[in-house]
Amino acid sequence: MNNKPVILITNDDGISAPGIRCLIDIVKDLAKVYVVAPDKANSGKSSSITVEVPIRIKKLYESESLIEYSCNGTPVDCVKIALNQILPERPDLLLSGINHGSNSSVSVHYSGTMGAVIEACVNSIPAIGFSINSFSRKLKLDYLKTYLRKIIVQSLNNKMDEGVCLNVNIPETEIKGIKICRQAKGKWQEEFDKRTDPYGGEYYWLTGYYQNKEQTEPNDTDEFALNQSYISIVPTQIDLTAYDFMEKLNCWDLD
Amino acid sequence: MNNKPVILITNDDGISAPGIRCLIDIVKDLAKVYVVAPDKANSGKSSSITVEVPIRIKKLYESESLIEYSCNGTPVDCVKIALNQILPERPDLLLSGINHGSNSSVSVHYSGTMGAVIEACVNSIPAIGFSINSFSRKLKLDYLKTYLRKIIVQSLNNKMDEGVCLNVNIPETEIKGIKICRQAKGKWQEEFDKRTDPYGGEYYWLTGYYQNKEQTEPNDTDEFALNQSYISIVPTQIDLTAYDFMEKLNCWDLD
Repeated sequence: MNNKPVILITNDDGISAPGIRCLIDIVKDLAKVYVVAPDKANSGKSSSITVEVPIRIKKLYESESLIEYSCNGTPVDCVKIALNQILPERPDLLLSGINHGSNSSVSVHYSGTMGAVIEACVNSIPAIGFSINSFSRKLKLDYLKTYLRKIIVQSLNNKMDEGVCLNVNIPETEIKGIKICRQAKGKWQEEFDKRTDPYGGEYYWLTGYYQNKEQTEPNDTDEFALNQSYISIVPTQIDLTAYDFMEKLNCWDLD
Repeated sequence: MNNKPVILITNDDGISAPGIRCLIDIVKDLAKVYVVAPDKANSGKSSSITVEVPIRIKKLYESESLIEYSCNGTPVDCVKIALNQILPERPDLLLSGINHGSNSSVSVHYSGTMGAVIEACVNSIPAIGFSINSFSRKLKLDYLKTYLRKIIVQSLNNKMDEGVCLNVNIPETEIKGIKICRQAKGKWQEEFDKRTDPYGGEYYWLTGYYQNKEQTEPNDTDEFALNQSYISIVPTQIDLTAYDFMEKLNCWDLD
């Protein structure tokens, strides 16, 4: 038992979402598993932290190899309180997801799933975020288990570089294989749904669709891989410095 | 009037914070200014978006050169709704801040100030986030105006690369000059403040201190510049791909 790796699992859809139950199922015989996940949906929470209300945790389940807590905070709060207050040992790996909805391209910036992964990475813990290119909660997830298990086992057997984590996106049904990719250039084209409430006040719902910003159709992006029914893995770094722009910036008249 | 640049201003401390009033003051004779900022404090909101409650906006002020709206959403929501529903023209520049509290090193990931900047950058709008290394709301901000004006004018006169924005951090009082920097390697060492409520329930407040993770003391980081009383400018990119790790990842057994 003591030789098993320790895996911390969280997500942003909340502790009862089908995606996180699937992730627990994939690794439960492989590791000592701690689950510390939000008590409700936290979609689009990015790397946000909770500073205005207190954080509360609740132990929901405990067996020899699986301990589960819910938390009223964000995915990043879950990682912080897990590492600092809940886990008696340092995890060998953090897994986040499986998110219902893709986090490819620039969606990585809005993603609570990837917020948790980046938080673990800041704390030098190898970390992987998994997202599926579907919002359906009814989707049967058996088709992806072998692939995710392989990625997880490889991440336990190999070393990730300091400051690097993985953003894994999974096609909706058929999987042809796994591709290492770069983050596609794109944006969300917003279309606010404007409505009027029963009291005459105007309000908006944020909607939109993904818009490709690549110049040509490249074959090395996460978007391309997903569209071709491959799992995409983007190695993702926490150093945001644009080193290539430094030389130009040094030419600005800032003295 | 028509030849003046258009500047969109937002922040994460809320529309009435001293920092955003100072920023408006610095550029009001230079540009047509639109302010779309949160109606309350949004600290630590990162790039989060609002999907569970409707977004509402309120026009607070209008003159020929300055129009102000508050919004009940996050800093990123403010940018999205400004670009899509409020501004009749595309801004030449987005400014965010001045945040009360530094957003150097890994704090860039939690920062709502920088969330707004990254959102503008995703939309190909040049963008700068300003943060001051002090939480005091009583701090007189006159000492930084000349420097910030210089950075803003230079960013209007020079081109930023696609996908690159600026993260500017300002020392608390004296300013010796401006340095172009990289993001320092560091983390927040959490110290949860555990308390018991009047009903016997336990809760936590998130606290902590910044911990340096650099191997030696480098002189090219934002943390170093700030500590030496220099303004730090980190060119910041929205592509998170860790290109350097791709070769190693391609050696993992994922077939």
